[in-house]
Amino acid sequence: MTVPELHSELDYVEYLPKKAAVVGCGVIGAAWASRMLLKGVNVMVADPSPDAEAILLEVLGNAVAAWDDLGLPTDKQGSYTMAGSVAEAVADAEFIQESAPERPEVKVAVLAEIEAAAPADAIIGSSTSGIKPSVMQADMANPERLVVGHPYNPVYLLPVVEVVGGDQTTLENIRRAQGMYAAFGMRPIHVRVEIDAFIGDRLLEAVWREALWLVNDGVATTQEIDDIMTHGFGLRWAQMGLFETYRIAGGVGGFRHFIEQFGPTLDWPYSKLMDTPDFTPELVDTLVEQSNAQSGMHEIRDLERIRDQNLVGFLKVLEGNKWAAGNVVAEQRKG
Amino acid sequence: MTVPELHSELDYVEYLPKKAAVVGCGVIGAAWASRMLLKGVNVMVADPSPDAEAILLEVLGNAVAAWDDLGLPTDKQGSYTMAGSVAEAVADAEFIQESAPERPEVKVAVLAEIEAAAPADAIIGSSTSGIKPSVMQADMANPERLVVGHPYNPVYLLPVVEVVGGDQTTLENIRRAQGMYAAFGMRPIHVRVEIDAFIGDRLLEAVWREALWLVNDGVATTQEIDDIMTHGFGLRWAQMGLFETYRIAGGVGGFRHFIEQFGPTLDWPYSKLMDTPDFTPELVDTLVEQSNAQSGMHEIRDLERIRDQNLVGFLKVLEGNKWAAGNVVAEQRKG
Repeated sequence: MTVPELHSELDYVEYLPKKAAVVGCGVIGAAWASRMLLKGVNVMVADPSPDAEAILLEVLGNAVAAWDDLGLPTDKQGSYTMAGSVAEAVADAEFIQESAPERPEVKVAVLAEIEAAAPADAIIGSSTSGIKPSVMQADMANPERLVVGHPYNPVYLLPVVEVVGGDQTTLENIRRAQGMYAAFGMRPIHVRVEIDAFIGDRLLEAVWREALWLVNDGVATTQEIDDIMTHGFGLRWAQMGLFETYRIAGGVGGFRHFIEQFGPTLDWPYSKLMDTPDFTPELVDTLVEQSNAQSGMHEIRDLERIRDQNLVGFLKVLEGNKWAAGNVVAEQRKG
Repeated sequence: MTVPELHSELDYVEYLPKKAAVVGCGVIGAAWASRMLLKGVNVMVADPSPDAEAILLEVLGNAVAAWDDLGLPTDKQGSYTMAGSVAEAVADAEFIQESAPERPEVKVAVLAEIEAAAPADAIIGSSTSGIKPSVMQADMANPERLVVGHPYNPVYLLPVVEVVGGDQTTLENIRRAQGMYAAFGMRPIHVRVEIDAFIGDRLLEAVWREALWLVNDGVATTQEIDDIMTHGFGLRWAQMGLFETYRIAGGVGGFRHFIEQFGPTLDWPYSKLMDTPDFTPELVDTLVEQSNAQSGMHEIRDLERIRDQNLVGFLKVLEGNKWAAGNVVAEQRKG
């Protein structure tokens, strides 16, 4: 077994593009645009929906409120332009972030539209949460500059972005993309092996599958599952991941002691699930009913506001303790 | 499909036992004892290890520091006694928490020792993270008072405890156990259907399995996986669980819109893993080497201190925002 090269912060050089384009301006695209605007980048936005600008303004409002609360500057904003077409949006861009609907044929079509008008060396990042870049770039004219740049919502607050190249992406362009994401105030992690769903969504998919079966089988409600997360291991994972947490469980003997102590338990076949349950009308109704009972007393906009307030508070705590995501905020404050 | 009765806060009555016993005083047992002592309960402790008292004092020190930092009272501590035997520890106890090694035959033997000396109606809670209470209680004389009370470490800070009854446990005793855990400042969630690993560890097991394969297959290092968690979805789950987060993703259309929008994607077979990889010496070495590279610069005691500082900070943020685990802290402050 080879131990892969560790991710190094030094592999890329931060570079803030002067002109950027956001193609697809739903919640994710609007949050990308907000992050870039707050960093002073001028952003061209393309989205066929008549609601796109309203979504952008609402998300930008949330982002400005959150950055104000966090004490990051919000007074050097770039300007945005709603472009009439993808071609118009990308014509001058150094960096383009694609956040179109999550269907391979849509992604391929949108990428073709982008390429027809964009500079040949512009970096194109895709927000896909699972489609391999090799699939998306197969028919591109300049496939070497396509990366996946997979963010986590709210994109204007959560710093991580998974950067994944395909067969035809050059390492140089992966580094260029990392440098731009870093300049947007993010922590770009290079996913060195191309797999479906990358790293984070592999973990999320596993939890999702398990949680859906628990609801489907009547073992637990959505609220009970969420409560166990938010009052238990969720608080751990906001600051230390699975492995660092288990290292502590191993005590002074470290990770080897943890494996020796818990190894057999860890291998117990608590679950052999492979699939998600079928989304039958009954299961969908159950999920909707339980979710309404759990959260229906809050408007979605209120939930977003509460979420952002909590995240801002957590990031301040982590920055004060010089730990994890707090260090990314500290870097931003310097820059 | 039946929608199970929602967990109700009103099903139990808080009751602080005057005398409690902790059987098994490793990190988990010591943290249970610390939580009880800080609430003013007198605790008898039984553990055959000569290190047990030192572990208790170290964990209690961490717990006092954390509660001081959180602004919870630490001046009404109960007293602890290191008992010479399990029999001595449990003879007078109203409540007994068992935290023996995680092997069914050990649990059964320790429970028999407890029962031989404890009052017949004392509640016995087991810290097992996966063994079914029905299995543990099969040969008990008074099986109706055995529950699983599965906590999350650090037990003195994380409020959740999963309360699970077996075939022979009465609902009345489940409610009595919930009332005692609540009096220790916890959020007792009744797991109404008895399954291996209950709810939280089913989710943890799914993530663990996926993460181990990612390391085993050389896709990612322990540090990269942890970084993606702590800079991404970990920050989400400290305040909103899987379902509430996805409800937000559905926008004003709510959970039904989320399922409709993402349903097909959610069903993509990103992963078909059923098992953990074999813990070959090579895999163990890889894990240890990567964990050392990631966290080896910190002593375990320092990691514990940093973890607790971060948790205290998060709990204060959540309390200020009247949200999730912060509400449990607010309740404690009143009491």
